[in-house]
Amino acid sequence: MTSTAELPLASPAPAAVCDCGVPTQGADPGVARSLAQTFKALGDPTRVQLLSIVAAADAGEACVCDLTGPVGLAQATVSHHLKILVDAGLLTREQRGRWSYYSVVDGALGEVFDSLVRVLDRR
Amino acid sequence: MTSTAELPLASPAPAAVCDCGVPTQGADPGVARSLAQTFKALGDPTRVQLLSIVAAADAGEACVCDLTGPVGLAQATVSHHLKILVDAGLLTREQRGRWSYYSVVDGALGEVFDSLVRVLDRR
Repeated sequence: MTSTAELPLASPAPAAVCDCGVPTQGADPGVARSLAQTFKALGDPTRVQLLSIVAAADAGEACVCDLTGPVGLAQATVSHHLKILVDAGLLTREQRGRWSYYSVVDGALGEVFDSLVRVLDRR
Repeated sequence: MTSTAELPLASPAPAAVCDCGVPTQGADPGVARSLAQTFKALGDPTRVQLLSIVAAADAGEACVCDLTGPVGLAQATVSHHLKILVDAGLLTREQRGRWSYYSVVDGALGEVFDSLVRVLDRR
């Protein structure tokens, strides 16, 4: 999957419009797909919670073993949700011994938001 | 469905942490649900495209009749995607005669990201 850091830049050229004033094509398809993938990763309350808990962890990282309790789900389910957040470029994962540790990718959400703003500002 | 304008504020109180340094609970469940619903609405490339096209329309609004061509989908499918964006509080819909016209809700995306930032900044 494409991480948010690899999002191609939206074209700065104004979109061509029909005589009704509406652009005849949307944003760059690759940008739209990357954005949608990231938003889909965030489109689940448990994943929003996991991101929130990892972001607030004292050491800047959280062991998967400490994430099951707060969200009240089995470790396999939590690991699945975490993998989706890692694939979307929002978390990083480091294996240390038996456990995986997760950290928020600095600036990833800002990049997503910036990319969305560019997609919405094509006039 | 809850519009983004109705997102409850995240609690400003720091999250309690276990002795491993990880918060013992996530963000406010209502906030997490509202955010996830909005991100789910954005989690589809066609909906990102539609939002982009409506945002770039000259008059600040676009008729559904002018949106089918750019995304190459049937009107019923486009209307379904647009309804999801309206339900998420990202677009407004106005019926005029035979056609529906869509506009981007000013500030809605900014509010969503502000809410997400608060959720991620609970330390």
